[in-house]
Amino acid sequence: MAEQRYITIDALLERVRKIFENCGVSPENAEAVARVIVAGERDNCKSHGIYRIEGCLRALAAGKAEPKAVPEIHDGGRSVIEVDAGGGFSNPAFNAAKPALVARAKETGLAALVIRDCLHFSALWHEVEALAEEGLAAVSMCPSYAFVAPAGGKEPVLGTNPFAFGWPRPGEHPYVFDFATSVAARGEIELHRRAGTPIPEGWAVDRDGNPTTDPDEALDGAMLTFGGHKGSALSTMIELLSGAMLGEFMSREALEFTGGGALLPRHGALILALDPQVFAARSGRDPIAEGEKLLTAISGQGARLPSQRRFAAREKALREGVVLNEAEFAQLDRFEALGLEAVKM
Amino acid sequence: MAEQRYITIDALLERVRKIFENCGVSPENAEAVARVIVAGERDNCKSHGIYRIEGCLRALAAGKAEPKAVPEIHDGGRSVIEVDAGGGFSNPAFNAAKPALVARAKETGLAALVIRDCLHFSALWHEVEALAEEGLAAVSMCPSYAFVAPAGGKEPVLGTNPFAFGWPRPGEHPYVFDFATSVAARGEIELHRRAGTPIPEGWAVDRDGNPTTDPDEALDGAMLTFGGHKGSALSTMIELLSGAMLGEFMSREALEFTGGGALLPRHGALILALDPQVFAARSGRDPIAEGEKLLTAISGQGARLPSQRRFAAREKALREGVVLNEAEFAQLDRFEALGLEAVKM
Repeated sequence: MAEQRYITIDALLERVRKIFENCGVSPENAEAVARVIVAGERDNCKSHGIYRIEGCLRALAAGKAEPKAVPEIHDGGRSVIEVDAGGGFSNPAFNAAKPALVARAKETGLAALVIRDCLHFSALWHEVEALAEEGLAAVSMCPSYAFVAPAGGKEPVLGTNPFAFGWPRPGEHPYVFDFATSVAARGEIELHRRAGTPIPEGWAVDRDGNPTTDPDEALDGAMLTFGGHKGSALSTMIELLSGAMLGEFMSREALEFTGGGALLPRHGALILALDPQVFAARSGRDPIAEGEKLLTAISGQGARLPSQRRFAAREKALREGVVLNEAEFAQLDRFEALGLEAVKM
Repeated sequence: MAEQRYITIDALLERVRKIFENCGVSPENAEAVARVIVAGERDNCKSHGIYRIEGCLRALAAGKAEPKAVPEIHDGGRSVIEVDAGGGFSNPAFNAAKPALVARAKETGLAALVIRDCLHFSALWHEVEALAEEGLAAVSMCPSYAFVAPAGGKEPVLGTNPFAFGWPRPGEHPYVFDFATSVAARGEIELHRRAGTPIPEGWAVDRDGNPTTDPDEALDGAMLTFGGHKGSALSTMIELLSGAMLGEFMSREALEFTGGGALLPRHGALILALDPQVFAARSGRDPIAEGEKLLTAISGQGARLPSQRRFAAREKALREGVVLNEAEFAQLDRFEALGLEAVKM
């Protein structure tokens, strides 16, 4: 068992921010990216924590990420606000456009944010949670890399296409879910391959479209969506709404653009923000109090609401700091010392 | 095997419309309801075809449906258009508000329609398909009756909560899906009960939350969502967005209001309309042509797009008419002759 040590959230944030700044990333962009990476560690979502630094640095080293991109907002004053990430990370673009999105949703009831031409590595819960904290309901989705076959098919034309939703709760963490529309993450299949263990049935098909539990055949074939044809339909919707509809890359183009799955995908993202107070106004009911009736009826019967594990980890981390093992600390040291050279070797 | 006969779509429409008019339903409402019921038969969706007439008449006979409701549109000129169905069927309310929704989405890129206080018996594909025919992407959802437990729970607080999506295709039927977020329909469990056969595993839990294949225990317990915790999260989102957020009934209240599942549920519905031309404008790409690349890549590998069976049935019905058996014709005769008395006996 690797030795572990605590680090405070602020100290970790400072280290991650400095790593990005040392790699030529502008202070604003480094701050935004570091915040979302540290939020992953804080919430014990290790797959979206400091593990992601290497992928970001690789994208920068390969010239596939614009380190000093300045998000450019295009707002015609209607329902759709756009922000061009300019080939930079999605996070500073979201941060830049969030105030306009929140204001528009509160004014008109419903608004969309289109993020264009961004590198996407972060979980979507970060965005819907930030909007829920403003009192808004939010939906977020984006394509990814085409590793997933549609139901009944064998060719990977869909991404793992995440879908996230947030809903405000008074005095509580918001109701938030964020899931991939694939059954499993590609990294999980990779872990089985390294361990030499079979993957569960239903995760993937081989090149000929036959069910397989062999991780090599799965990686050579295609992953499957959760929930059979229903999940496949949802994933297709996500490709259409957050790829085709925006005029941005769908998952197949995103994969072709980077020439493989080793770099971060570049595409757009769609975020919808809805103001329950505007929607409910004529009903005379309090939409948030109504929502609580459902949410407490779910948690009250012992069923877990999504994100509860994450929120519990967060509360612990805010008190005690984040636990990293020595290998993780060593990697932070290495990135700090070597910058982009660390990923060029 | 019951004897079967053809009836033209127009002739069936005329018969169904007359049945509703004879039951005191206003001509506009009878027309809207008859159209959606006949569309169910035309597309060979028998569960949403003339089978639904009896439920509608029962609701009318019980005084739970307003036969002459006049939909009232409230449009503040922002992103949210509302229509009060006034306790009538949802269909005339949707029809009344559709032009305003289409115009607003085309003007601003994104608009929502809230249907308030309606009786809901029809499939949502009808609505998203009508919007896709106008060149819009559309999402529709609504609560239903609380027969479904959340993942990890046992008490039914969620409905079968359908979710539908439509996307326009040039020279083709639109891409449309419409699914319940429950694994199965309640009617399917009822059919197993009558046949004395077990239900498949994963459909339901008993009163204590244990998995069951006994239809009686299932009906006494709770149905489950598709896709485990992901489907459960989606179903919860649907309750929040199309119930709590609108200040309309959620599935539990809808069930309490009618005192059981024998009558049509009364609640609201949420429909989002998005104009791909507005969303894509700055990209310089044609969103519909981009969408075709994905959809033809799905169908081209032999995977079926959703609704294809329905569209094939439609084309056949438009050529040859609809096939009904003698029992169905006899029931139409009976409803025609007896009106609401037919369901009071």
